[in-house]
Amino acid sequence: MTTEDAPRKGISRRGLFGAAGAAVATGVAGYAVHSALSGEESQAADNTGPVEFHGPHQAGIVTAAQDRLHFAAFDVTTTKRDELIALLKEWTAAAALLTAGRDIGQYGAVNGPGEAPPEDTGEAVGLPPARLTLTIGFGPSLFDKRFGLASKRPAALVDLPHFIGDDIEPGRSGGDIAVQACSDDPQVAVHAIRNLARIGFGRVAVRYSQLGFGRTSSTSRAQTTPRNLFGFKDGTNNLKLEDAEKLEQQVWVQPEDGAEWMAGGSYLVSRRIRMNIEIWDRTSLGEQETIIGRGKGTGAPLGKAEEFDAIDFVAKGSDGEAKIPMDSHVRLAHPQFNNGAELLRRGYNFVDGSDGLGRLDAGLFFLAYQRDPRKQFIPIQTQLARTDTLNEYIHHVGSGIFACPGGVTPGSYWGEKLFA
Amino acid sequence: MTTEDAPRKGISRRGLFGAAGAAVATGVAGYAVHSALSGEESQAADNTGPVEFHGPHQAGIVTAAQDRLHFAAFDVTTTKRDELIALLKEWTAAAALLTAGRDIGQYGAVNGPGEAPPEDTGEAVGLPPARLTLTIGFGPSLFDKRFGLASKRPAALVDLPHFIGDDIEPGRSGGDIAVQACSDDPQVAVHAIRNLARIGFGRVAVRYSQLGFGRTSSTSRAQTTPRNLFGFKDGTNNLKLEDAEKLEQQVWVQPEDGAEWMAGGSYLVSRRIRMNIEIWDRTSLGEQETIIGRGKGTGAPLGKAEEFDAIDFVAKGSDGEAKIPMDSHVRLAHPQFNNGAELLRRGYNFVDGSDGLGRLDAGLFFLAYQRDPRKQFIPIQTQLARTDTLNEYIHHVGSGIFACPGGVTPGSYWGEKLFA
Repeated sequence: MTTEDAPRKGISRRGLFGAAGAAVATGVAGYAVHSALSGEESQAADNTGPVEFHGPHQAGIVTAAQDRLHFAAFDVTTTKRDELIALLKEWTAAAALLTAGRDIGQYGAVNGPGEAPPEDTGEAVGLPPARLTLTIGFGPSLFDKRFGLASKRPAALVDLPHFIGDDIEPGRSGGDIAVQACSDDPQVAVHAIRNLARIGFGRVAVRYSQLGFGRTSSTSRAQTTPRNLFGFKDGTNNLKLEDAEKLEQQVWVQPEDGAEWMAGGSYLVSRRIRMNIEIWDRTSLGEQETIIGRGKGTGAPLGKAEEFDAIDFVAKGSDGEAKIPMDSHVRLAHPQFNNGAELLRRGYNFVDGSDGLGRLDAGLFFLAYQRDPRKQFIPIQTQLARTDTLNEYIHHVGSGIFACPGGVTPGSYWGEKLFA
Repeated sequence: MTTEDAPRKGISRRGLFGAAGAAVATGVAGYAVHSALSGEESQAADNTGPVEFHGPHQAGIVTAAQDRLHFAAFDVTTTKRDELIALLKEWTAAAALLTAGRDIGQYGAVNGPGEAPPEDTGEAVGLPPARLTLTIGFGPSLFDKRFGLASKRPAALVDLPHFIGDDIEPGRSGGDIAVQACSDDPQVAVHAIRNLARIGFGRVAVRYSQLGFGRTSSTSRAQTTPRNLFGFKDGTNNLKLEDAEKLEQQVWVQPEDGAEWMAGGSYLVSRRIRMNIEIWDRTSLGEQETIIGRGKGTGAPLGKAEEFDAIDFVAKGSDGEAKIPMDSHVRLAHPQFNNGAELLRRGYNFVDGSDGLGRLDAGLFFLAYQRDPRKQFIPIQTQLARTDTLNEYIHHVGSGIFACPGGVTPGSYWGEKLFA
């Protein structure tokens, strides 16, 4: 990018740019002007605006969960540290534009109208920012010998162990770098990942990607609790952005945690969890509720009336058994039985067509942020994998762990402190 | 379903049911009441209501295109005609409820609370109807010897020929029955297909299914033209629901067309069209516009200023060449060069993760309705497959053709005239 190009960058997709942008745009065969002025109007009154990209933490973690996901894991294909750093700078600049609802560049104007490929692929022209967030994380494999980062690998960025029942496909797991794109419009999320992949051509390659819909957790008390593909409310007791103190304890890496460059960041664990929904759908309501430990309709803990009623793990029914069964999901996953460990979940439902055996390839793309996976995801999942009766209906087929650094300040770039 | 169960069916998902429904629901451990009353409020002011299921034509054809798709093709696994008819009756009853935003049944109440599987899988509880439409079609294979339908096969329901460049995967093609679910909420569309599949257990099996987003055509003049994953406006000259006379000529099967049971229906051609977007993204803007024959920003025909300007196929540039190139997509697909044949398109973008080679498995799930594929899709596609320069960037990997009968009247069922 030359200085001359700079003012051409970042044309609003919706006709909101000022005189400077317009003056440049009219030189480009009328393209940018028309694309902006003929933009579609917002389809919804809310959820169309931008989320601030810069800040002390990365957006997309405690941000009120958006409705759609495009998650991509990349392998770095260059072996040159400088090229990787240059890419991260370009990605950061693009991410700031994309999350503001701006196109990245002038559609071929750089080398004269029409003679270069468009800098932006164009399918989001006319669409609002739709609360797009882009969140980056670095996988354990990035800290091998290639880029001189071995000494920077945080102790908390462990390789996840094999959990009982795991059926992990390597092609859907790992990755040097992950980018989580969340938005209330799937086309906006897809557009963002696609353009980052395009910018990264020759330096990174997409290892796998995953689309999701219908957020399966709320991350704000202003949101209602959504339902997962088992038909149950999911994430009732999730950490929420309003829980500032708990977020410091459970989500944000603190300066005293070691790996200085990760302060203000968080560790992401991703799990592609396939649900055997055809089997689940033939299970009785009573059995389903016993497995989960909550009512299906209300979401209330068994024995209680309302979703947010406190769970009573001691109460017994007339049969002398605990009302919340000992091997129910809600008990085994609860902080009370996990040394107080909690997770900030922001997973998504997925349906990727069928699996060739007449079953929907469907489930939960689980995403959880935490301060230290060794004290949070790993012990919780170890217990669940061993005892949870839900295991009869799910299996984990993809897995990733990523160190997501703190937020980006203007003029900085994704991972600057890691490479400092 | 017994008569006694009938009033229990069809509880609104959003707390709108009347006294009768509530009276029954309170008997079910408070479940239905709570599920309805605690329903989430609408996320958007519009696009949340129902589309009428009954009528002279099936909904989901000229209905203003919704934003999301779940398409499923089924193989019939029973060989008994009576079982197939029974299934179609059950499906029709369920479709009427689902499209009205109602759950299908009482969540296990049939045999006493909790002792049966829920009749509805539950993940759409609290969600509005979101303009759900369910549209059924019958594939050529349904007219084999199994069900005594061979003599009913319409002449227009041909097996599609092999087109130049086709790379068709059998597992993503064909099917005895197709159901197209369209909605403005993906979870509502997924819920509908899943519950139809569940009802069909033992009689049909899902052969393949496809999710889509970002409708790539508008079917009403009240809608703006969306963009496909090539970044171009798609479907500018599509047939629209306001074109009543043209719809009779081009979309709706007429009584004189033969196959009496198809009157008021339409033929659906589905094509899974993979786009080589990584290659496209490295093609210059000028080349992209030459291939399509329209400006990328405006959507205007080359040489014109506005999207809906009439296309001038005769005009030449200063170089003496046609402004709309002879092998451009817009020229080859235009009715003027196809004996006046048109299609009503309502396809969707898809991104199904990656393909294992670092490329997005992305493209267009093309859906086109028409009165006679022999005069419409087949000759148009024959010409495109031979000459369209766009072929360098796309390939067709899935294919289906289905006879979609006319609309359902109350008391009737999907395909009743076929089995009469």
